[in-house]
Amino acid sequence: MGVTSNLNNELCAAARGPRNLITDVPGVRVGHATLEDGPGGPLHTGVTAIVPPGDCFTSKLPAAAYVSNGFGKSMGLVQVEELGCLETPILMTNTLSCGACFDALVRHALDTHPQIGVSTGTVNPVVMECNDGPINDIRAMGVRPEHGFEAMRAASEDCEEGAVGAGSGMTCFGLKGGIGSSSRVLSFDGREYTIGVLVMTNFGALECLRIAGVPVGEQLAEFKRSLVSGEDKGSIVAVIATDLPVDARQLRRFAKRVTVGITRCGGYIGNGSGEIVVAFSTANRMNHWAGHEVDGRSLPMIDTAARLSDNAMDVCFRAVSAASEEAIISSLAHADSLIGRTGEITWSLHDLASQAGVDLPAGL
Amino acid sequence: MGVTSNLNNELCAAARGPRNLITDVPGVRVGHATLEDGPGGPLHTGVTAIVPPGDCFTSKLPAAAYVSNGFGKSMGLVQVEELGCLETPILMTNTLSCGACFDALVRHALDTHPQIGVSTGTVNPVVMECNDGPINDIRAMGVRPEHGFEAMRAASEDCEEGAVGAGSGMTCFGLKGGIGSSSRVLSFDGREYTIGVLVMTNFGALECLRIAGVPVGEQLAEFKRSLVSGEDKGSIVAVIATDLPVDARQLRRFAKRVTVGITRCGGYIGNGSGEIVVAFSTANRMNHWAGHEVDGRSLPMIDTAARLSDNAMDVCFRAVSAASEEAIISSLAHADSLIGRTGEITWSLHDLASQAGVDLPAGL
Amino acid sequence: MGVTSNLNNELCAAARGPRNLITDVPGVRVGHATLEDGPGGPLHTGVTAIVPPGDCFTSKLPAAAYVSNGFGKSMGLVQVEELGCLETPILMTNTLSCGACFDALVRHALDTHPQIGVSTGTVNPVVMECNDGPINDIRAMGVRPEHGFEAMRAASEDCEEGAVGAGSGMTCFGLKGGIGSSSRVLSFDGREYTIGVLVMTNFGALECLRIAGVPVGEQLAEFKRSLVSGEDKGSIVAVIATDLPVDARQLRRFAKRVTVGITRCGGYIGNGSGEIVVAFSTANRMNHWAGHEVDGRSLPMIDTAARLSDNAMDVCFRAVSAASEEAIISSLAHADSLIGRTGEITWSLHDLASQAGVDLPAGL
Amino acid sequence: MGVTSNLNNELCAAARGPRNLITDVPGVRVGHATLEDGPGGPLHTGVTAIVPPGDCFTSKLPAAAYVSNGFGKSMGLVQVEELGCLETPILMTNTLSCGACFDALVRHALDTHPQIGVSTGTVNPVVMECNDGPINDIRAMGVRPEHGFEAMRAASEDCEEGAVGAGSGMTCFGLKGGIGSSSRVLSFDGREYTIGVLVMTNFGALECLRIAGVPVGEQLAEFKRSLVSGEDKGSIVAVIATDLPVDARQLRRFAKRVTVGITRCGGYIGNGSGEIVVAFSTANRMNHWAGHEVDGRSLPMIDTAARLSDNAMDVCFRAVSAASEEAIISSLAHADSLIGRTGEITWSLHDLASQAGVDLPAGL
Repeated sequence: MGVTSNLNNELCAAARGPRNLITDVPGVRVGHATLEDGPGGPLHTGVTAIVPPGDCFTSKLPAAAYVSNGFGKSMGLVQVEELGCLETPILMTNTLSCGACFDALVRHALDTHPQIGVSTGTVNPVVMECNDGPINDIRAMGVRPEHGFEAMRAASEDCEEGAVGAGSGMTCFGLKGGIGSSSRVLSFDGREYTIGVLVMTNFGALECLRIAGVPVGEQLAEFKRSLVSGEDKGSIVAVIATDLPVDARQLRRFAKRVTVGITRCGGYIGNGSGEIVVAFSTANRMNHWAGHEVDGRSLPMIDTAARLSDNAMDVCFRAVSAASEEAIISSLAHADSLIGRTGEITWSLHDLASQAGVDLPAGL
Repeated sequence: MGVTSNLNNELCAAARGPRNLITDVPGVRVGHATLEDGPGGPLHTGVTAIVPPGDCFTSKLPAAAYVSNGFGKSMGLVQVEELGCLETPILMTNTLSCGACFDALVRHALDTHPQIGVSTGTVNPVVMECNDGPINDIRAMGVRPEHGFEAMRAASEDCEEGAVGAGSGMTCFGLKGGIGSSSRVLSFDGREYTIGVLVMTNFGALECLRIAGVPVGEQLAEFKRSLVSGEDKGSIVAVIATDLPVDARQLRRFAKRVTVGITRCGGYIGNGSGEIVVAFSTANRMNHWAGHEVDGRSLPMIDTAARLSDNAMDVCFRAVSAASEEAIISSLAHADSLIGRTGEITWSLHDLASQAGVDLPAGL
Repeated sequence: MGVTSNLNNELCAAARGPRNLITDVPGVRVGHATLEDGPGGPLHTGVTAIVPPGDCFTSKLPAAAYVSNGFGKSMGLVQVEELGCLETPILMTNTLSCGACFDALVRHALDTHPQIGVSTGTVNPVVMECNDGPINDIRAMGVRPEHGFEAMRAASEDCEEGAVGAGSGMTCFGLKGGIGSSSRVLSFDGREYTIGVLVMTNFGALECLRIAGVPVGEQLAEFKRSLVSGEDKGSIVAVIATDLPVDARQLRRFAKRVTVGITRCGGYIGNGSGEIVVAFSTANRMNHWAGHEVDGRSLPMIDTAARLSDNAMDVCFRAVSAASEEAIISSLAHADSLIGRTGEITWSLHDLASQAGVDLPAGL
Repeated sequence: MGVTSNLNNELCAAARGPRNLITDVPGVRVGHATLEDGPGGPLHTGVTAIVPPGDCFTSKLPAAAYVSNGFGKSMGLVQVEELGCLETPILMTNTLSCGACFDALVRHALDTHPQIGVSTGTVNPVVMECNDGPINDIRAMGVRPEHGFEAMRAASEDCEEGAVGAGSGMTCFGLKGGIGSSSRVLSFDGREYTIGVLVMTNFGALECLRIAGVPVGEQLAEFKRSLVSGEDKGSIVAVIATDLPVDARQLRRFAKRVTVGITRCGGYIGNGSGEIVVAFSTANRMNHWAGHEVDGRSLPMIDTAARLSDNAMDVCFRAVSAASEEAIISSLAHADSLIGRTGEITWSLHDLASQAGVDLPAGL
């Protein structure tokens, strides 16, 4: 359900969507499969699926990827960049489970499209990851392809946030991180459109955390007497969805603005922080069979598409920036304290703030 | 007038345009300003202008740039890549005269658009270059902004090739190079479209030259007893024009295939060879004033545009590759032997082949 | 002289250099040529030169460029990226004067290197720009090549900040911007190294300005009753210098972190904001004549170079981020209110804060 | 054992290595695991491992990736590009088996490095692929992680070529393709260095095939009456190894020149042809633990490395281009005709040339 705090109204005056989630973009759904062994157990991990509406393979979505810092193992970005389209749902998971999620997406595509590998080419699975090793026994490679299927099947318009799905074992600013989401509604030529952002947060040094500009992290770090923290070794991955009629080049520009949200919270694109974004549009889908015979008729090679001017980008960039910042804070606000594989506790933002007597903005 | 030789019919079966020139793309014109001091004189240089139809600034053209080897000083590529559009004619010149051509394009834009720098932003001039120092006294910086104006004014559908305009002092495969052009006509959904290529050739080692696969260069180099040539220190720049409804991402893919033409002639993307391509489409132009009030009415932020499927790319890539190869050979076929600033002669392909008793393909 | 405010100690605990300027990097100098017609006059522009130590052409500096948002006309980036080196000083100026500065750098290289264009290749001038049109009569193209020479001659270790040189007519967050600089000192393996940043600021929407996290801009914008500001149409360009032994790939990573500083101040990589960074190292210079005969002896093709591990990047990134943030604030803190070409006043940060009764952090 | 034909002596006069294989680079080994069900059977696929000397994770190799055409699913490129290093062997396989090979590389790294995921970060597996669907039942996903292990264990200095390992089911220019390799030896400052190339060939339209410039493919296509072939739907992936002291930027430049070899054989970077190259150097390895305590002593953050000047690039590029061309032809020359999953035969170059009465160059 996002958060309702006023983190960045000066940056973006646009209204939030009804759920303040990426699922405010019509047809977009999110699902989780969570592997959670309980306090002190080995597994705290999972899969999160971002599922666009309709058949992604036959009716591909304009898409782009942006790598802010490439210390990461996300899969499928090369083809997204070349062809400007997405042809599978997107799975998020832990770093070493990318292979399992790749397999899940391949099998899902094979199951639903018997032509793949026979009368047409292959499929490009998109998998994104962060390293949950500090909390989860990542060496166990607990995620299996069936968890990818489970997350896709679970996809709905209600997107749970916090330590759930792939976010189960994530750490952000030294606090419990995970999944967060937010959305903004924009109006062009008299019609409304939505931009939604979903993040998996696993980055940041506690002392750097800022919420609405307030150096909350410094206060919390002093309380923990850990002001001299180590380097930023985590990562953050994000997905942007929109129903705006934007092309791959414009979506890549959108994707780059997630960095604004990250840095406003106190990130600095740390050396070890893989920061990778995939953005897609549900408008202007591209027919896999263009120029081919389908059901006895030849599909045209040339169609027509709506096209948003780059003159509209500035307000879009403000919306992406604001929703990204809020999604990150939302991931912190929704996660609960957790005792990980080593028996150590990772505090939630709320729990640590409460102990330290630090006030958080209203609405968190 | 291009060439009529069968260099690469197996690569691309498409017909040439009526002129076999980039100006076969409707509305595209080319003009030259030549600074030629005669045999042994210092200046053998100039400017070549590729002029799209209509007002480029107000009605921008979808465009992309591709840098195959960035040992070059071309200007304006950064913005072309970001915004996916071209908003001036393109000027080619020698390396050290880029500043003069930048000034020419700026002044041309200021003259025709009084809003620039007052009520709207600035303008992004696109200038491309090769180093004609071995033939031309490049240190004299002989090109002035007025030569840029002259080339733009001279633009017509008849595009002279060979040692003319910016190509005056260029050397290609150790032979006299310069300007070359070629075109191909493709059909989609029952309508014809044209892809045109113009190159300025200043690259290649003589012994590597191949024409239609035949190692002509080895034979010529043996005749000149210069088989052990030095490295490839030249460059090649190219412009692709088309009326196909392709976007910036697709134009960038087009641009990359100029490399195919270069390497088929014997280029190997040498260390010193700046190989840079700009591609634009005359379809789907983008209104500078989208979202603004113009003449009392508000222009829409969203318009509609035709869109060619990537399923059509393969035949387009074959056409770009073939036209690029042919444009390079055409630049050699149209250039005459020339005595440069040092008094040394740079032989034309025809003259050296004739002396060496080497047969060239019919149609050159 | 930089600023002494505590903007971001939690982000970077490293000490500032003795001057808190880019010139803290040994041998790096900065000079300005200012064209200033006084209150209400047409010209408020100029050139700023960042001059590395020694002969850049013969002994090139490892370098990289990063384009955060390519709505800009900076020159020379293509070759910097390909060859990973800088071979001229860097000139900053207004957008339409890039041609003049290109000419200045070419002539400077020709004057000092008679081999250029005769027995060796050409030279790659690096020019960076922002659009000062709102304050300066940019259409007048007042900057001439001699101003480029003047700025290079004036280069010293004392780098004036604020509305000077190329920064004369710049606007940042709706306030008077210009040139700002800062530095940080890091220690590796028992030796100290410096990272310096210089920015030319011309970006940002007033209501978004944050200083040390405090939403100063919102308060100032309310005072000016201009909370609903327009889009971010300006730009910011930056140069990073260091004596750390880093290569082009690592310098590109440095360059990307200037974005952190920009967004911490309230930037959001606006559509119209060209955000471009060039970074160079004074360590590990590259000999232009490697492999050639010089003075009768053959220079080796292979030399040895010190090499900083990427494990050291995190602390470097924190330093670049912090110095960039501080350099931006320093540009605001050093600029005075100015009456531009239209007769309108552009307030300095200090003057507007004073009128609005807004407290600024100590040290500004 | 490569081929001994004179395909491109004019392009590169350098000698071949003793084996004319990538394994001429000291310490580099190649191994295959082949899944071959015999004529008409479903499985004709496998894994090929390119194994650098020593422990890649602890002592990483300078590396780069180049995507010529991103219609491909190769894994690990993002991090290679960001950090400029390779930390696992490279596995090649069919498109849908990338997940299995990812798992193999992860497990191999976990087995040999107990710190991964506990006291240090994760690992970046590099997997490359082509689609062997026309010959192999790719939907069966027959490759398992143990085949990745098998290929790595089998690695030796004798690299079998042709339809073996991952190359088992590949098709190139309509002929049987697979694995091919070649090498060149260069001398700098009195010492010899080797550049080796290994390709997996699955691209090209038969009528476009040229061998040493001769349009062999046109003749073969006429014999098969298939001159109007379809589009290029295959792919080619390549690995370059060298012991030259080159950095990531230079390796990326090497990687780009594989395109020269591809196009000299008749490739045109077709729309569906994923063309992806990874290049690494065995010189100047990078210590994973730099700056950390190891065995009670602190490893330095700064070391020294040999460095090859870009002035040496031209001769390197010629070597990469020539070895790439030869590796492709070698893959064709070593593959035997094969009856695939559909019962249809894919002819080898030798068999089809023999039937068609087309002479091939000596040495093939």
